[in-house]
Amino acid sequence: MDAELNLKLAQLLRARSTAALGTLHDGAPFVSMVPYAIAGDGAGFLIHVSKLAAHTKDMIAEERVSLLISQAEGGDTSPLALPRITIQGKAGAVSRESAERAAYRAGYLARFPDAEPMFDFADFSLFLIRPVTARFVAGFGQAHSLTGESLMRLVGAP
Amino acid sequence: MDAELNLKLAQLLRARSTAALGTLHDGAPFVSMVPYAIAGDGAGFLIHVSKLAAHTKDMIAEERVSLLISQAEGGDTSPLALPRITIQGKAGAVSRESAERAAYRAGYLARFPDAEPMFDFADFSLFLIRPVTARFVAGFGQAHSLTGESLMRLVGAP
Repeated sequence: MDAELNLKLAQLLRARSTAALGTLHDGAPFVSMVPYAIAGDGAGFLIHVSKLAAHTKDMIAEERVSLLISQAEGGDTSPLALPRITIQGKAGAVSRESAERAAYRAGYLARFPDAEPMFDFADFSLFLIRPVTARFVAGFGQAHSLTGESLMRLVGAP
Repeated sequence: MDAELNLKLAQLLRARSTAALGTLHDGAPFVSMVPYAIAGDGAGFLIHVSKLAAHTKDMIAEERVSLLISQAEGGDTSPLALPRITIQGKAGAVSRESAERAAYRAGYLARFPDAEPMFDFADFSLFLIRPVTARFVAGFGQAHSLTGESLMRLVGAP
């Protein structure tokens, strides 16, 4: 991808607040909405989820997940040509003892301040989704494949 | 759900143009963006997809899919509390010989007029997703389960 496309993708990922998370649920795909933050160390995408929720149990049983982040509908862009990216990745809980957790928590809360009370609930955890591959559709018929590494490199620090 | 919630859900489904489609891809979840229309006969949700696309091959191999439709980000609503619905359903191609196809095509094109040229491409097909179960999250901590039948009844004709 050229510099203009890289910038377009980085701006999309920084501008949006929510993603569609695909998990494997009883052998079938299951898609739920998750607010996300970009990990400050470039390791991946952070979500904050309840152990009581279906998607969390799904991620614990099967680490392979998918994230879709799409440009907002509306404006001049046809719904058929909305820029969006599908990220295939691996999800894992961020342990309360891990060295990264404090920075991840701060980064998530900088983006979603009203999530703070939920960090006191024992059943909520941060999960990190590490991208493995991604497919960026920049517009109609404009699809580009990326590795997880190149995706995180171009997204950079939040 | 009460009448107010039913209306809120029907309005959400009618107001949005795109959904996140979850398919099973090499045993893992895969989420892609799809414009959707509500079938005029209340049978389900219509999407128009290319046989060359990963999600189409996935649906042919495994009919179980998931659709997420979320309220737009922004406004007064926290990203953590955005109303959204996850629909677990079964996808199948609408055959070119089926009695419903002309009405489905017209309904889809009424919503997405710029998709018309793609109806001339041999590799594009309409798929109907019939809801089996659904989970509507109307706001923070407000989750409601529905059957596919009750969902389509309350959505009604487009």
